[in-house]
Amino acid sequence: MICEKHFLYEDRDDVFLTTYLWEPSPELLAGEKRPLVLVCPGGGYLNCSDREAEPVALRFAGMGYHAAVLRYSTYGERRDDFARLATDDYLKPHILYPVQMRELGIAMLLLKRRAAEWRIDADRVAICGFSAGAHNCAMYAVNWNRPVLTDALKANPEELHPAAVILGYPVVDFGITEGVCDADRPLYADMYKAFIGAAEPSEAQFAQIDAARQVTADTPPMFIWSTAADATVPVMNSLNLASALSKHGVPFELHIFEEGLHGMGLCDQASAGVTQHMDAAAAKWPELAGSWLAKRFVLDVPKGE
Amino acid sequence: MICEKHFLYEDRDDVFLTTYLWEPSPELLAGEKRPLVLVCPGGGYLNCSDREAEPVALRFAGMGYHAAVLRYSTYGERRDDFARLATDDYLKPHILYPVQMRELGIAMLLLKRRAAEWRIDADRVAICGFSAGAHNCAMYAVNWNRPVLTDALKANPEELHPAAVILGYPVVDFGITEGVCDADRPLYADMYKAFIGAAEPSEAQFAQIDAARQVTADTPPMFIWSTAADATVPVMNSLNLASALSKHGVPFELHIFEEGLHGMGLCDQASAGVTQHMDAAAAKWPELAGSWLAKRFVLDVPKGE
Repeated sequence: MICEKHFLYEDRDDVFLTTYLWEPSPELLAGEKRPLVLVCPGGGYLNCSDREAEPVALRFAGMGYHAAVLRYSTYGERRDDFARLATDDYLKPHILYPVQMRELGIAMLLLKRRAAEWRIDADRVAICGFSAGAHNCAMYAVNWNRPVLTDALKANPEELHPAAVILGYPVVDFGITEGVCDADRPLYADMYKAFIGAAEPSEAQFAQIDAARQVTADTPPMFIWSTAADATVPVMNSLNLASALSKHGVPFELHIFEEGLHGMGLCDQASAGVTQHMDAAAAKWPELAGSWLAKRFVLDVPKGE
Repeated sequence: MICEKHFLYEDRDDVFLTTYLWEPSPELLAGEKRPLVLVCPGGGYLNCSDREAEPVALRFAGMGYHAAVLRYSTYGERRDDFARLATDDYLKPHILYPVQMRELGIAMLLLKRRAAEWRIDADRVAICGFSAGAHNCAMYAVNWNRPVLTDALKANPEELHPAAVILGYPVVDFGITEGVCDADRPLYADMYKAFIGAAEPSEAQFAQIDAARQVTADTPPMFIWSTAADATVPVMNSLNLASALSKHGVPFELHIFEEGLHGMGLCDQASAGVTQHMDAAAAKWPELAGSWLAKRFVLDVPKGE
């Protein structure tokens, strides 16, 4: 496995793509190209969670795919960054929407433009995000062929096209707060400031970053999973997105498990920060996602004699 | 993930350990130690199969464990090496039993002696082999506390102890040829010459490298899987080993799937060289092995509030 860090900006060390590339072997696909799953960890655009990064990349790598993890721009790396959110001087213009979505585009271009060298099947790159990382993926999925990405990155839409999208407990509409537990309400205030740059965003601002309202027939196929009991990002986010996909005829699969906290990642001991992140029922999602993905990402295994 | 090659001999590039170590993170196990699965690919002691190497390491890595792959001494790397097996001058003394078993011991010592640096739980290192690699693991499992390893490697038995053993379609008794298809009979002749150093090994020579006949109560717990239809390594190998484990009260689990060729590895597209290496029923073994392993290799996930 070839694991390397590739920094997206020359002068910053917080935004980078980590690759998890299979070694070539004449015994496997004749050493040739594989599909890739590009992972966007969550963290409320406040940071990037390790629990939704390497563990997820390794799970997909174990299925036979290349993987990569994008650490995109977030409000803080250090604890003291967050102190600013309590002041009136909270604005960090360089991390406001749509910068993270464009960073996902930069990562996609890096992967596709080095596809031959890295033995990546450029037509089969999926994106997989969690929570705010799923928001980033969902926004990317509705904007991949629009000027906000194509013009900004001077890229052809085909180069930016994600072949499939996997979303875990996605934020879709930041304005949905019904069902959010009291303990997590301050998180929303922080996310509004950090990502939208407004303590009280307008309806127009919410609409601009609501992926469900921007779904079209060009939106790529999606696999969505979440839990009905999620008291941090209400399940209505997933349901609204699935409804929009259904209306526009976009292929999708949706799994809502009854129980389980927000942020369970793989839902087993491989990614759990605390035991509450483990749930045997929800832990079926990687296998379900693997089966769904395998329909599109079948590997080119030769037929023997 | 930290992937590195560590050569076992200064003057040879064909015998090495490749590590697949999780990056430490304060969010996961407080960045501390993990169990490790050490993989021995098969190949009849004639070579080491890529299909039973990285794919397997990545599957176990995806479960939350560190992994490593050992490329041990085999008869040939290049095609022309094998031409010698057709001559009377076939002997390569440096690859005869028990060198591969000792190399597994060297790898184990390397992992355990660098356990702190590599964040490995030294008390929980499993070995996992396939076919001849499973023979190597099985022989190691019955010899870990005997002079053939402890004296030769100047090591304490505890340092050499494997916590668990996972065997895929193991060779146990090289003398079992009933049920071997005609096409694979020449393979046995080659293995005898390459690994035992005799075109027609004696009964004593077969007995010396039969793991089943050497099982004791000190043999570590084993998970064994194979297929009843295997026409290269007859399923009696697995059954004899399981019988010996049962007699000596060693905990074990055995799964014999009805169908499937020898050498299917993970049994799905992640490790298939040809489509015949895929079988939906047998492809359940990694999950079964994961469940079995998780009983012993439970990660130290803290209980949250």
